[in-house]
Amino acid sequence: MPTSMLAVMKPTSAPGAEVREVKIPTFGRTDVLVKVKVASICGTDLHIYNWDRWAQNRIHPPLIPGHEFCGEVVAFGDEVTSVKEGDFVSAEMHVACGKCLQCRTGEAHICQNVKIIGVDADGAFAEYVVIPESNIWKLDPAIPLEYASILDPLGNAVHTVLAGDIAAKSVAITGCGPIGLFSIAVARACGATSIFAIEVNEHRAAIARQMKADYVLNPAKEDVRAVVAERTGGQGVDVVLEMAGHPDSIRSAFDIVRRGGRISLLGLTSKPISLNFSEDIIFKGITVQGINGRRMYQTWYQMTALLKAGKLDLHPVITDRMSMKDFPKAMERLTTGEASKILVYPNGVR
Amino acid sequence: MPTSMLAVMKPTSAPGAEVREVKIPTFGRTDVLVKVKVASICGTDLHIYNWDRWAQNRIHPPLIPGHEFCGEVVAFGDEVTSVKEGDFVSAEMHVACGKCLQCRTGEAHICQNVKIIGVDADGAFAEYVVIPESNIWKLDPAIPLEYASILDPLGNAVHTVLAGDIAAKSVAITGCGPIGLFSIAVARACGATSIFAIEVNEHRAAIARQMKADYVLNPAKEDVRAVVAERTGGQGVDVVLEMAGHPDSIRSAFDIVRRGGRISLLGLTSKPISLNFSEDIIFKGITVQGINGRRMYQTWYQMTALLKAGKLDLHPVITDRMSMKDFPKAMERLTTGEASKILVYPNGVR
Amino acid sequence: MPTSMLAVMKPTSAPGAEVREVKIPTFGRTDVLVKVKVASICGTDLHIYNWDRWAQNRIHPPLIPGHEFCGEVVAFGDEVTSVKEGDFVSAEMHVACGKCLQCRTGEAHICQNVKIIGVDADGAFAEYVVIPESNIWKLDPAIPLEYASILDPLGNAVHTVLAGDIAAKSVAITGCGPIGLFSIAVARACGATSIFAIEVNEHRAAIARQMKADYVLNPAKEDVRAVVAERTGGQGVDVVLEMAGHPDSIRSAFDIVRRGGRISLLGLTSKPISLNFSEDIIFKGITVQGINGRRMYQTWYQMTALLKAGKLDLHPVITDRMSMKDFPKAMERLTTGEASKILVYPNGVR
Amino acid sequence: MPTSMLAVMKPTSAPGAEVREVKIPTFGRTDVLVKVKVASICGTDLHIYNWDRWAQNRIHPPLIPGHEFCGEVVAFGDEVTSVKEGDFVSAEMHVACGKCLQCRTGEAHICQNVKIIGVDADGAFAEYVVIPESNIWKLDPAIPLEYASILDPLGNAVHTVLAGDIAAKSVAITGCGPIGLFSIAVARACGATSIFAIEVNEHRAAIARQMKADYVLNPAKEDVRAVVAERTGGQGVDVVLEMAGHPDSIRSAFDIVRRGGRISLLGLTSKPISLNFSEDIIFKGITVQGINGRRMYQTWYQMTALLKAGKLDLHPVITDRMSMKDFPKAMERLTTGEASKILVYPNGVR
Repeated sequence: MPTSMLAVMKPTSAPGAEVREVKIPTFGRTDVLVKVKVASICGTDLHIYNWDRWAQNRIHPPLIPGHEFCGEVVAFGDEVTSVKEGDFVSAEMHVACGKCLQCRTGEAHICQNVKIIGVDADGAFAEYVVIPESNIWKLDPAIPLEYASILDPLGNAVHTVLAGDIAAKSVAITGCGPIGLFSIAVARACGATSIFAIEVNEHRAAIARQMKADYVLNPAKEDVRAVVAERTGGQGVDVVLEMAGHPDSIRSAFDIVRRGGRISLLGLTSKPISLNFSEDIIFKGITVQGINGRRMYQTWYQMTALLKAGKLDLHPVITDRMSMKDFPKAMERLTTGEASKILVYPNGVR
Repeated sequence: MPTSMLAVMKPTSAPGAEVREVKIPTFGRTDVLVKVKVASICGTDLHIYNWDRWAQNRIHPPLIPGHEFCGEVVAFGDEVTSVKEGDFVSAEMHVACGKCLQCRTGEAHICQNVKIIGVDADGAFAEYVVIPESNIWKLDPAIPLEYASILDPLGNAVHTVLAGDIAAKSVAITGCGPIGLFSIAVARACGATSIFAIEVNEHRAAIARQMKADYVLNPAKEDVRAVVAERTGGQGVDVVLEMAGHPDSIRSAFDIVRRGGRISLLGLTSKPISLNFSEDIIFKGITVQGINGRRMYQTWYQMTALLKAGKLDLHPVITDRMSMKDFPKAMERLTTGEASKILVYPNGVR
Repeated sequence: MPTSMLAVMKPTSAPGAEVREVKIPTFGRTDVLVKVKVASICGTDLHIYNWDRWAQNRIHPPLIPGHEFCGEVVAFGDEVTSVKEGDFVSAEMHVACGKCLQCRTGEAHICQNVKIIGVDADGAFAEYVVIPESNIWKLDPAIPLEYASILDPLGNAVHTVLAGDIAAKSVAITGCGPIGLFSIAVARACGATSIFAIEVNEHRAAIARQMKADYVLNPAKEDVRAVVAERTGGQGVDVVLEMAGHPDSIRSAFDIVRRGGRISLLGLTSKPISLNFSEDIIFKGITVQGINGRRMYQTWYQMTALLKAGKLDLHPVITDRMSMKDFPKAMERLTTGEASKILVYPNGVR
Repeated sequence: MPTSMLAVMKPTSAPGAEVREVKIPTFGRTDVLVKVKVASICGTDLHIYNWDRWAQNRIHPPLIPGHEFCGEVVAFGDEVTSVKEGDFVSAEMHVACGKCLQCRTGEAHICQNVKIIGVDADGAFAEYVVIPESNIWKLDPAIPLEYASILDPLGNAVHTVLAGDIAAKSVAITGCGPIGLFSIAVARACGATSIFAIEVNEHRAAIARQMKADYVLNPAKEDVRAVVAERTGGQGVDVVLEMAGHPDSIRSAFDIVRRGGRISLLGLTSKPISLNFSEDIIFKGITVQGINGRRMYQTWYQMTALLKAGKLDLHPVITDRMSMKDFPKAMERLTTGEASKILVYPNGVR
């Protein structure tokens, strides 16, 4: 067993990050040490890299970021009972406190005291990462390595799509970043009968078409409300999954949902948005849900079942595969908007 | 049978209304003619009287307003089978089309083509009113006459309170007009364990106390957020029923609801309201519902059962009883905010 | 317009039926006269033909049976507003009373006073059939004629599958008559990840394979409980859809459902069945649902959406297409168990 | 701190039990040692005492029984963080594994590997009992000591009543042992509008009346089905809570539930029961639920809220208070059926 490893390290409170040698982390009695095989990059990682306002408030360097990954168990504490060396695993990186009202009533995904590995503690952009046993998710070897590394954002999609009825429903997905794109696949697999993907970026729109959205609409060029109305017999869609977090997109969600429909909000925005509550919510009798993380661990069972059954083709979303040492280049690719989901290999792309 | 009757008539597109003799309305094969015993006055009636912007857009005089009442069946069309002369009845005044998606899937309360008797057609501020058989609600004689005349707003309260779990929950009711006040009684009867009534008007606050709210808070004088936090162990309330429609009140709803809680919105507002979707909805993982009318006819069964069982004491809300000819005086009493629910007797108070 | 038509007629209280000329039925002000294009045969029709105990108690000849069909509107009463001549339609043949508790609370499929066209009144094994406007279901011309004729049993399947969560679930379907077979397609389309079809009849088992059940098990030859346990990691299935109504099949449903799972019962049986409530229901914490008919009209919207989206391939279930005059031969084919769904064409197979 | 304590001990695999001095139990790093203030006796304890067939299969003496209690924290392991000395506590005595499918999806009450303290490990009929920190429930000092000792069976009642809608519903409770009696109080508090208590034992029926059931029916003397039909307008009850586990009682549940109603089964029975699935479940479109234990920890929050709000008067159910040394006498009182809930004080009744 080596004592040092390669990792992406944010050393100080400033933009950027370095790929360098650090000590392999130590682990406690209830922890598992995992050798990372593949990690993937989230928009959050770009915020941390760019050191934007959110990052300045939340992140305390030095920090190894990274919260999407899969790997292999290499060691564990003496109280760990459910894994063995060589197990193929991923992990829920939201570590819930287990003691608050939400945790004790099956709502750990909105724990009051959550800590996120890769945000509040050293994460997975490294050769090794430490995970509490409770948060380890054992994987069937049948699940492809690449898919195993993106279970965190796929779980966001599954949680959002299945937060209400979806079978035999029309659904609009506003915003086609990776989670929005995954949601197309999940909604299709779960019986959505008409899927509208709404996206301004042409790279993303192209992938939405590959994911088999029934309609891909560009709000900069088309009257989304009119097209949705026409394609839904004037009703609007049964369900909107809001994945962009942009004021225009959120506004549009309320415009295109039908009376009695559901809007599930996942996309974050720092800007306040103005709504006419009477027209937008009350007269239409709609339901609006805030969606956070993944249900522990119902969402994990669901996505495992969908993946094992071969119900999801996620390949179009994975646009880049890089060696971890090229992390800064990955940040560029995300900034230009050309990349969707980028996979990072600690020991080089295999 | 007489041929004319006394009614409150709005003759033209202008403020005010007259109490005068008009013809008794004719009825069709599927209609029921009801002799009104008691009607009650809604805020909507004040809008119509004052001829505000909403009324100017919606109302087409001449019109007899009035959509809350009870009475006695005096005649009916030849296809009517479910009532007989002398039956004690009230009615759902939202006449749903029966043919739209919402109507055909159990959501008639958000019908796309709804007509409201007393708003879109002649209503109940009259000695007689015509109601389609489908909308008649037969009443047990055990239900007090006064309560029978306020089933429409009581139904709003029942629909809102029971739109999600309420037993063993803490609940805040923002806005203590009649529907808010009724909601206190309904929430108590259905197992809410801690009820916060939030209201600036002292007349209304006094009634909220009589309705046995556990805490009556005045946002103009108290830090509602702080008091609610203190009384809920720092959590916030499980449920908020928003009954005011005021921007400050809606804002407050999002401040005091706990993570994972429910906000049910009933109070209408014409002003846009600004929200921080990330902080107010998404991170908290809450559910926001738009509430409209009453479920046809589940809400009616529910309120009948609660009333028959003696579970609701609504008397404090009924502040005024007047002869119909004093209708303009009733409008004044509502305008000053001294009255809560005003009952109107077509043939004088008995 | 002709005055007589060909129909399958059960003239007296005895086994059998005749195909003969009868008068075209008259219709009322709220009725629609439909020219039948294709009808399909249900097990119920075989009970009526064979004049078994159930039929002797329920059926009052003379009767034209048949409650699964599609056709074209040819005439209608003067109060009908929602159809026009030439419309392509099917119909919900359960005519609910509209006035009982269940009808008034969105549960018309369990109406206390339901009448079934084709059972309690003349049905669709005829060139023409009369349907109340309220029960007409207008069809998109994009829906294939053959599928349009089997919406009644397809609706049973959709109602059963979607009576609870199905996405990302394992599901067992006990009994592969037409509704069981349709359920395989519906469950697959709505995201079931592992489908066990359980059937003793080899003809039906073969079709279950064509419908792409993941496992087709013969309880006469295999230890169903053991196989299901093995294939579900020892858990049992999340959902059982009981479609056989046979005591062994119902028994098996309770054996193979997992702790916390759902059993939805559709298959009818006249025999009492013995259960150990503690072991079979209580300790496992399961939910058992009785399923009846189709939700009016949510199920119809759902199946229309699934069909229009091309989500369902039902062809393997349609084994026979016959001219209506060969009705007795169809009865034989069903009795031997060689046929699954038989379509009947009033004017000969086209 | 003493080293020995008084306890009810079942020393061998035979009927009976002894009250004697034993060692105070040791506790682990994650355990809490609680000084028992009051314990209460469950029917299970009588089975263990009588050494019936169930006990012979499940219990491995030596064992200290007892799984309903409250007390005071006196010591705890070094990893315990959420309690302090002197805390007033009760506990969930079902110790769930935390690792099975059910535990990881919010259904720990049906854990596959549950161990029950007082059944599978030494329990609370003793001066001290050891409880894992995860299962400790901290109590507000405002909750009366006596009520704090019966949270386990009260939780069964709360879980059963709130397993579906109860507000504005009619409900029948079949079987008025302590849990059935508690259910009367809980259903009333949560808005049930008409409560039928069905019980043959006159002692229990008398308490049901004190608990304010609207109707107390003796199936040995009255035609329960007829009375329920008459009192519910011919519908039957909306909800049945089956608390007796007797074949006649379970049979009756299916007879009196209305179309579309709910039956929640809690009462255990070792005998198989015969049902006509078509008539009893399918045509009526009902839902049948198996209920087990208490939801961890939603039920505990719910009952705490109800108790703190003073919504439940449970005193009539507590018929006996005894010193722990009189345990054999308590067993007699339960056997004769004269006692309902018996409280046991380790250090004598105070």
